[in-house]
Amino acid sequence: MEKKLDLLALGEVLMRLSPVQNERLTQCATLEKQIGGAELNVVAGAVNLGLSAGIISKIPQHMIGDYAEQEICRNKVSTEYLAKDRESGARLGLYYYEYGANPRKPQVVYDRKNSSMYRICEQDFPEEMYSAARCFHTSGITLGLGGKVRETALEMIKKFKKNGALISFDVNFRGNLWSGVEARECITRILPLVDIFFCSESTARLTFGKEGNIKEILKSFADEYDLQVVAATRRTVHSPKLHTFDSIAYERKSSCYYEENPYENIDVVDRIGSGDAYISGFLYGLLKENGGCQEAVEYGNAAGALKNTVCGDILLTTPGEIEEIIRSHHSTGIDFELKR
Amino acid sequence: MEKKLDLLALGEVLMRLSPVQNERLTQCATLEKQIGGAELNVVAGAVNLGLSAGIISKIPQHMIGDYAEQEICRNKVSTEYLAKDRESGARLGLYYYEYGANPRKPQVVYDRKNSSMYRICEQDFPEEMYSAARCFHTSGITLGLGGKVRETALEMIKKFKKNGALISFDVNFRGNLWSGVEARECITRILPLVDIFFCSESTARLTFGKEGNIKEILKSFADEYDLQVVAATRRTVHSPKLHTFDSIAYERKSSCYYEENPYENIDVVDRIGSGDAYISGFLYGLLKENGGCQEAVEYGNAAGALKNTVCGDILLTTPGEIEEIIRSHHSTGIDFELKR
Amino acid sequence: MEKKLDLLALGEVLMRLSPVQNERLTQCATLEKQIGGAELNVVAGAVNLGLSAGIISKIPQHMIGDYAEQEICRNKVSTEYLAKDRESGARLGLYYYEYGANPRKPQVVYDRKNSSMYRICEQDFPEEMYSAARCFHTSGITLGLGGKVRETALEMIKKFKKNGALISFDVNFRGNLWSGVEARECITRILPLVDIFFCSESTARLTFGKEGNIKEILKSFADEYDLQVVAATRRTVHSPKLHTFDSIAYERKSSCYYEENPYENIDVVDRIGSGDAYISGFLYGLLKENGGCQEAVEYGNAAGALKNTVCGDILLTTPGEIEEIIRSHHSTGIDFELKR
Amino acid sequence: MEKKLDLLALGEVLMRLSPVQNERLTQCATLEKQIGGAELNVVAGAVNLGLSAGIISKIPQHMIGDYAEQEICRNKVSTEYLAKDRESGARLGLYYYEYGANPRKPQVVYDRKNSSMYRICEQDFPEEMYSAARCFHTSGITLGLGGKVRETALEMIKKFKKNGALISFDVNFRGNLWSGVEARECITRILPLVDIFFCSESTARLTFGKEGNIKEILKSFADEYDLQVVAATRRTVHSPKLHTFDSIAYERKSSCYYEENPYENIDVVDRIGSGDAYISGFLYGLLKENGGCQEAVEYGNAAGALKNTVCGDILLTTPGEIEEIIRSHHSTGIDFELKR
Amino acid sequence: MEKKLDLLALGEVLMRLSPVQNERLTQCATLEKQIGGAELNVVAGAVNLGLSAGIISKIPQHMIGDYAEQEICRNKVSTEYLAKDRESGARLGLYYYEYGANPRKPQVVYDRKNSSMYRICEQDFPEEMYSAARCFHTSGITLGLGGKVRETALEMIKKFKKNGALISFDVNFRGNLWSGVEARECITRILPLVDIFFCSESTARLTFGKEGNIKEILKSFADEYDLQVVAATRRTVHSPKLHTFDSIAYERKSSCYYEENPYENIDVVDRIGSGDAYISGFLYGLLKENGGCQEAVEYGNAAGALKNTVCGDILLTTPGEIEEIIRSHHSTGIDFELKR
Amino acid sequence: MEKKLDLLALGEVLMRLSPVQNERLTQCATLEKQIGGAELNVVAGAVNLGLSAGIISKIPQHMIGDYAEQEICRNKVSTEYLAKDRESGARLGLYYYEYGANPRKPQVVYDRKNSSMYRICEQDFPEEMYSAARCFHTSGITLGLGGKVRETALEMIKKFKKNGALISFDVNFRGNLWSGVEARECITRILPLVDIFFCSESTARLTFGKEGNIKEILKSFADEYDLQVVAATRRTVHSPKLHTFDSIAYERKSSCYYEENPYENIDVVDRIGSGDAYISGFLYGLLKENGGCQEAVEYGNAAGALKNTVCGDILLTTPGEIEEIIRSHHSTGIDFELKR
Repeated sequence: MEKKLDLLALGEVLMRLSPVQNERLTQCATLEKQIGGAELNVVAGAVNLGLSAGIISKIPQHMIGDYAEQEICRNKVSTEYLAKDRESGARLGLYYYEYGANPRKPQVVYDRKNSSMYRICEQDFPEEMYSAARCFHTSGITLGLGGKVRETALEMIKKFKKNGALISFDVNFRGNLWSGVEARECITRILPLVDIFFCSESTARLTFGKEGNIKEILKSFADEYDLQVVAATRRTVHSPKLHTFDSIAYERKSSCYYEENPYENIDVVDRIGSGDAYISGFLYGLLKENGGCQEAVEYGNAAGALKNTVCGDILLTTPGEIEEIIRSHHSTGIDFELKR
Repeated sequence: MEKKLDLLALGEVLMRLSPVQNERLTQCATLEKQIGGAELNVVAGAVNLGLSAGIISKIPQHMIGDYAEQEICRNKVSTEYLAKDRESGARLGLYYYEYGANPRKPQVVYDRKNSSMYRICEQDFPEEMYSAARCFHTSGITLGLGGKVRETALEMIKKFKKNGALISFDVNFRGNLWSGVEARECITRILPLVDIFFCSESTARLTFGKEGNIKEILKSFADEYDLQVVAATRRTVHSPKLHTFDSIAYERKSSCYYEENPYENIDVVDRIGSGDAYISGFLYGLLKENGGCQEAVEYGNAAGALKNTVCGDILLTTPGEIEEIIRSHHSTGIDFELKR
Repeated sequence: MEKKLDLLALGEVLMRLSPVQNERLTQCATLEKQIGGAELNVVAGAVNLGLSAGIISKIPQHMIGDYAEQEICRNKVSTEYLAKDRESGARLGLYYYEYGANPRKPQVVYDRKNSSMYRICEQDFPEEMYSAARCFHTSGITLGLGGKVRETALEMIKKFKKNGALISFDVNFRGNLWSGVEARECITRILPLVDIFFCSESTARLTFGKEGNIKEILKSFADEYDLQVVAATRRTVHSPKLHTFDSIAYERKSSCYYEENPYENIDVVDRIGSGDAYISGFLYGLLKENGGCQEAVEYGNAAGALKNTVCGDILLTTPGEIEEIIRSHHSTGIDFELKR
Repeated sequence: MEKKLDLLALGEVLMRLSPVQNERLTQCATLEKQIGGAELNVVAGAVNLGLSAGIISKIPQHMIGDYAEQEICRNKVSTEYLAKDRESGARLGLYYYEYGANPRKPQVVYDRKNSSMYRICEQDFPEEMYSAARCFHTSGITLGLGGKVRETALEMIKKFKKNGALISFDVNFRGNLWSGVEARECITRILPLVDIFFCSESTARLTFGKEGNIKEILKSFADEYDLQVVAATRRTVHSPKLHTFDSIAYERKSSCYYEENPYENIDVVDRIGSGDAYISGFLYGLLKENGGCQEAVEYGNAAGALKNTVCGDILLTTPGEIEEIIRSHHSTGIDFELKR
Repeated sequence: MEKKLDLLALGEVLMRLSPVQNERLTQCATLEKQIGGAELNVVAGAVNLGLSAGIISKIPQHMIGDYAEQEICRNKVSTEYLAKDRESGARLGLYYYEYGANPRKPQVVYDRKNSSMYRICEQDFPEEMYSAARCFHTSGITLGLGGKVRETALEMIKKFKKNGALISFDVNFRGNLWSGVEARECITRILPLVDIFFCSESTARLTFGKEGNIKEILKSFADEYDLQVVAATRRTVHSPKLHTFDSIAYERKSSCYYEENPYENIDVVDRIGSGDAYISGFLYGLLKENGGCQEAVEYGNAAGALKNTVCGDILLTTPGEIEEIIRSHHSTGIDFELKR
Repeated sequence: MEKKLDLLALGEVLMRLSPVQNERLTQCATLEKQIGGAELNVVAGAVNLGLSAGIISKIPQHMIGDYAEQEICRNKVSTEYLAKDRESGARLGLYYYEYGANPRKPQVVYDRKNSSMYRICEQDFPEEMYSAARCFHTSGITLGLGGKVRETALEMIKKFKKNGALISFDVNFRGNLWSGVEARECITRILPLVDIFFCSESTARLTFGKEGNIKEILKSFADEYDLQVVAATRRTVHSPKLHTFDSIAYERKSSCYYEENPYENIDVVDRIGSGDAYISGFLYGLLKENGGCQEAVEYGNAAGALKNTVCGDILLTTPGEIEEIIRSHHSTGIDFELKR
């Protein structure tokens, strides 16, 4: 049966406020405003790469909420399952981001508590939603919001699974939302439902107590919870403005590992959302026609690397551009330096 | 006994985020950030006019709180009684402001709930604070925040009164914070402690049920609660960009009314804080050497009119400038049109 | 039978480049970029007011075309019938706009020749399109582009008409596109197919040779071509920054004229698109539930007046806001001056 | 004998630094930089209207001087007689300008002392310069700089006069440069050499002790010093953003007065340089083919009114535009409101 | 016989529109506008280095054309041979430029078809033009525009040659303008008239079928067409923000090759026009007093390297600065890091 | 006896005007304005690190002076000893700064002559000032201003010394202010009064004729003038955007040298004031509780490195941040790359 969308994700929509490039938050006269949020970034990136996708979330019914909705529409992400919070005092969660410059690290100040997302509930959405997508994605950030959000997320995972959707989950551990122990307990509870699992090496070790090298860790997750694919990104930070990026994935079915040469000397314009863009690319590589783990890793790496060069949380790109990034990355001959 | 400061005010410090002049909140790429808050506006304006003053408030201990503190310092407002909220998740209240253009009205979206101000308590401040100022000012907005904030405010009024400070109170009714009934009940409870009272004619009628003309209303307040002075501003809005502004005050001691020709054809650059600037000017006129009600009204009107021409919530001016505005307003002869 | 959309319009999508407010085009360092076009403005405004609508047009398949498409999506206008021009050298038509200040008039420099719109043809669109909307709108600008565009437009009018859509047409005469004689000949040919007709008084006189007062002119059009409604806007330009705006409509069925008090003292932020916004409001008033000519005129006037206060070609608003503008316009009592 | 240029003017080149429109100088994060100076404004405006003209001045040989020179070139003003100051510590005079908004007046802070202009001397320029122009212009500002500048200016007036140039002089009295007594003594010394004289009514009264109405004052100047033409502008300041502007001129030869309906409701974007633009227009009207006093007043008024709508000190316009402003000003019928 | 100018170049004047540094064209709210064009860049750079030079081109007679002309004047490039296109619909060619960040390459979207340049013809220029310059320069871009532009260019080359000017030609192959075959055929036809020839190694190989190392290629061109000098630049692109740049030239007369240590670690702010700036420097080194091939290469390399650090298409510099760049490049001792 | 402040410094307050990052001074449309000055930078940095400090200086009593004062207040630097210059024509010294990009070096154009600072005298300050601080700091720039400024500085050094303050002195040699011979003569006269001495290696060699390696140089200064500590910073400039920074200090009492691993790969956002920030950190490390030379060098290096990443002349930071920079610099294990 044909699904309406390739991908639906549940997560909070946030407004990001950041100074123009190198200024400090305490000194800047203006703030650039942008829309993001881990899961929104994943679906928006996926749409820009070629999938059809939508966001499941709740935003306030006022001008700031309208702004968020319009930005989501701008990225052609479906807002069919974007609930509106009409209560007085409804707020859009936000965060302040200060860019880094070696030896000063980038910094985030969160102000997301008590946002409209905290009032999300199953009744905000129609039952047909659960059969509307081939794949459902959420992350540990959503679970970490706790309370009703977590409950709703857990219920949604079950319902989407039941309706035949692939379940994709990114641990995305944030110590300021919950403790490692709480995260571990909650996530291990849903892992049996998960098909595609993203977890960084350090979180695997610190939160899940995994040991061995990264390959052993990935395999261990896959075997323990019968996951189809497990992937981990690797980022080397030479400076806040210069990174190296790649990843490794393990497919249970084939018992194969997938990786390729890293993207080096990435000119980091804006690192926020590059991990999410990796997932956009990964899911695109997996879900596209003739896709698979090799494609997932290649599109994931290219998308993650490319996102670092794009302002804002969301991977702004086109299918043609990502193909060219990959082709250029694999090319060994002479390459033009300017597209015209 | 000589007091350390002329004026102390209790109120929330807010960050204002607004588009560049005429853009809508949904469309602008950047937001100008500024610091305001009714009572902060009053003390900052008063300092810029020549008084010494400080703010009593609570702000978060992170970059956004630091920004607020630095802006307060920039205006030479004492931060000695500015408490820091070191809890994780501490937030600075904020509001979004969209400028109007006839027939589109200016709009505010508040996001001030659960800010650090909500955690203020008497223990945040030393006892010597209550004898540090000649005058204490707060407003209905602070009381309207409710809970611990209101309790703290009520206690502070009592303590400052006991220590010989003049008590200044601005009703500043906001329907989105509390109901008229709740406001009336709370405010009438503190009115017996108040010396200088500011209330708009419409609030006097709607919330306090006053009748008669504005002179009768002012006198009725003064007589009923034994207030030294009661004042009300009058604003005629020809368009969001063109106002007329003046005020009237009643002094109980002399049974006199004070008013003067209104400021007409005010080029409104930013109306926010013009009512607070009026209070800055009024208190300056009252508390300055050889001050009195006549001076209070003249400085209040000039400060209120001038504030409309200044970007941001706070009256940026100098003592010399306000004198010149008043002189020019009263002048009947030829006047230069450019200061050089 | 239920139609998919309320409104579809055919017209060119243009990029507007303008200096920041008061600078001259020869001096400004940067240009603000925005998306507009007479018919796009109509549908975008209509969507923002509450209709469902789409644009029929052709844009280039490159970054500038992508920008246009994203802005259209942002306004929730359907892009289902937005054709892509994949030829090398494809271009988006553009125009430069300089704001005026009395006695300097606003100025436009067009650079729209040979854009992708000039390559539009019926084969770019599926046949089902003609039965997708309750109303089809286009204007004399589209016809004035000439050649294949005009042919396509004429064919579309016929097909939409045949499929039961209301045909809405705005003369929008532009002397730089075609002569009055050519316009008259072409437009009178399609008028028998038109249901809702918009024509300014001066164009009616100069181009169509109408005589008598405005009421006689409107009636004469309606009678001659069996039009359901004919409407004309009236704009008094006190200065490029201060307008008065209203309109008059004649309904043939009822032989009634509809008008109301004009919107006076409009603070003109950006006059471009205010005539189009009038049509957005007019069609909304006509097509909405329980709509009619009275509603058409009221929503049209409010939308036209409001657009003047909004940056860019498109009426950015919400259904709630327009209701409030109308309510406030009709209100005679005291009105608040700031929404919070 | 054909002269190389229509006009040469002696005067200081200044850099103006001003906040974006409505901000105060104490609060703005950035300053717009522009080039001006009374006499430069006159020649630049004249070139933009159609004359050929050059500036006689001295500027530093460093990046800020280069900036000034490039802006002068941009306006096609000849820099052939622009001397360079190669001394270490050479500086370009500057001033800070804050826009006004009623009741806050525009303000200037000068920082022009000890600039390269103060080191100007006759040896900086070739003798052929004195026969290079049909008309030489300078103002009381240049004389008011005192010392070597004044001496040089007086010598230049004599030499240009001797070489057959018309001498144009604008009193432009600035109390911060010299006293009225000093100005009067100096200017009356050169008046016998002057052909075209500009003096405001208030300066005529206060500094030169003239009495009677404006017509009597103009005639009295012309008769006393055998001046060809004497002109005075009139500016009514309704607010810093709204002016009325016109002028009156007296021609000795014909004993005629020239004036016309004032330009009313001028949207003042930037009033600086509007008096200089008047002189640009006046000299253009006088020096152009078939020009005369009537043309001088009409072009002067239009140029002065138009300048108020243009950012920066210099009248940015074209010959075609000024013709249209005049035509529109004199037109009584219907007029289009937008040039396209 | 003394020529009026050192250099005249024929080429299109383009407006460049680019986002602020790192934004994408699809997301930016404003575009920076700048003037460029391969041959204009060459003459403007040459003027900034110390030559006298002019541009031969055709631009529209409207505000955008005026803007272009003013920018050309600002760079002190002679506009004596800048023809005006007064036809309605005249347009200035333009291009959109997006800066790159590794692994995202810089991108250009051209919109230059049907510009005023396409209407250039010999009748637009006086015959004396052909004897006005010591050197005439044009490039393959101008020839690639085809039709009347190419014809005009070929005629001009012949006439300038006949009048004793050195002929400088830059291949500057652009695949989007013409095919390699067409370019080769056209260019080999004019090579017998050329004195100074610029061709990149890759174009030499791909378009002209040259083989061997770069030295052999340069010599082969010089020998085959009796060229005085042939030069090729070399650019190594470590990232769009980090380049290495140098060049090699061959002089036929002396049979010598000229090169020097490359400029390494160039902080690329804006790569556009760096190849043109190389030619500015090369021609300056050749045409200046006591110039020659060694100077040509040194000034060319310094100019090309420096241009990469300057915003916009044009090399903004001074004779003193380029000398210092060269001195610093050749210096082996300690060097200051900040000029003050 | 407890002193009121930890630190007081004497020095000029300057306004810096610089283009947005990469533009040239000749091309930028706006200039960012900031406040700096070597000694102000030292005290402002010190306050931001945790000391209490004030500036001794003289600024004009007008809007530009007010701006400077407000920025100083913003940094919580005491303005108790900031004298006001009320003379007409009073000016704030300023300098223009152009950022560099390899191979283009950063450039400064000074315009500081005849500023209000040149009119400073002892009578501007109360006698109690000399006993108000634990440490007094000034630099060779202040002495280099000459005349009354130098005399005043020399007197202040003596008085602070007499009142028990530590005397800190930074040579900060500027060839555009005085000659090396004049500097040497003046500075060696005050060195017997100095306790903490900062001198770069190159100045030590060129101006003071020191020989041997840097350790020998430092020791030689300390021994010759009985200095408590002598320190020198080392900066390696890979490009204007990439530096390495460290320092070495010698303590006479312990005969020990202090140094640590350099900060490498510093992303230089703004190098101005990094040497001053080093002194801020050094003095903080020395004067803080349990401070000493080791702490001085560590805080100095971190502060100097960090300043390079901060826009403006002043080290904007917090005590917590600097601790983290140091911890991270010394850390050898895995480190997070983003603070959230």
